[in-house]
Amino acid sequence: MKDRSSPSRGLVAAIGLAALVAAAPAAAQAQKPTPSKAERAIKYRQSALYLLGWNIGPISAMVKGEIPFDQDAVVLRADRLAQLAPMIAEGFPADSQAGAPTKAKPEIWQNVDDFRAKAAELERVTKKFAATARTGDRKQIATGLGEVGGACKSCHDKYRAE
Amino acid sequence: MKDRSSPSRGLVAAIGLAALVAAAPAAAQAQKPTPSKAERAIKYRQSALYLLGWNIGPISAMVKGEIPFDQDAVVLRADRLAQLAPMIAEGFPADSQAGAPTKAKPEIWQNVDDFRAKAAELERVTKKFAATARTGDRKQIATGLGEVGGACKSCHDKYRAE
Repeated sequence: MKDRSSPSRGLVAAIGLAALVAAAPAAAQAQKPTPSKAERAIKYRQSALYLLGWNIGPISAMVKGEIPFDQDAVVLRADRLAQLAPMIAEGFPADSQAGAPTKAKPEIWQNVDDFRAKAAELERVTKKFAATARTGDRKQIATGLGEVGGACKSCHDKYRAE
Repeated sequence: MKDRSSPSRGLVAAIGLAALVAAAPAAAQAQKPTPSKAERAIKYRQSALYLLGWNIGPISAMVKGEIPFDQDAVVLRADRLAQLAPMIAEGFPADSQAGAPTKAKPEIWQNVDDFRAKAAELERVTKKFAATARTGDRKQIATGLGEVGGACKSCHDKYRAE
């Protein structure tokens, strides 16, 4: 019954590897302090939003005719927008108004329900856009991109500082 | 035939909104120069990797018993790992070895096939882990997390500077 009295090999391996994965950041933290929860949330949301922008870029360039239309690329980018959109809201926990440079306005935490509704709207339009992308219809894709951009703008106008 | 001779309303809306979405960054760039392609790639890949780490964290903490096991959270995080893993490789284009602080070693671009194989391995194990998460079997989840961590470590050991 040795297996019962000791942790599973899988568990030991997972803990060991998790420690190893964390090792390099821990070493870096010898120089700088461990980031606070707010700092991590700010970095997280900025990362998620950067990835959104990275994926919108090529679709926007195609719609504008700056680069050739590429149906597969539109589908790939649209899918990624739909995957990333639901990741944003958790980057704005209650205690993350400050702690690192951020354009997030305090109004976010004064209007949490409205903020979450805007995040949900982005989820909705990106999911719809992933379906639209598959039609290959450039006019519909342009309209869908406009909806995605509108959802971005709606939130930025109210909750992002210049 | 007015609709034929002018761009579609959807297209106009999309271009207008894309311009508006881009407007705030453009204003910020009045102070600092437009980021180079390499700078953008570095920021992109660091963002994607940060999101991976963000999602691994809670699963690792559950496996270690630091926080209560939450099956729904494991599934959510595992799905996100599987979504994010395929986003990484494009963050390492040929001309992105320098341009901003980066831990990416030049060896990446000297061993592109091997680097891509390691990225593909991360895709494979995260996809597998998303299925494993659904079993709810803690031992299998611990083993799966170990595989994910192993794929991270395999690439970090060879291609990430301290």
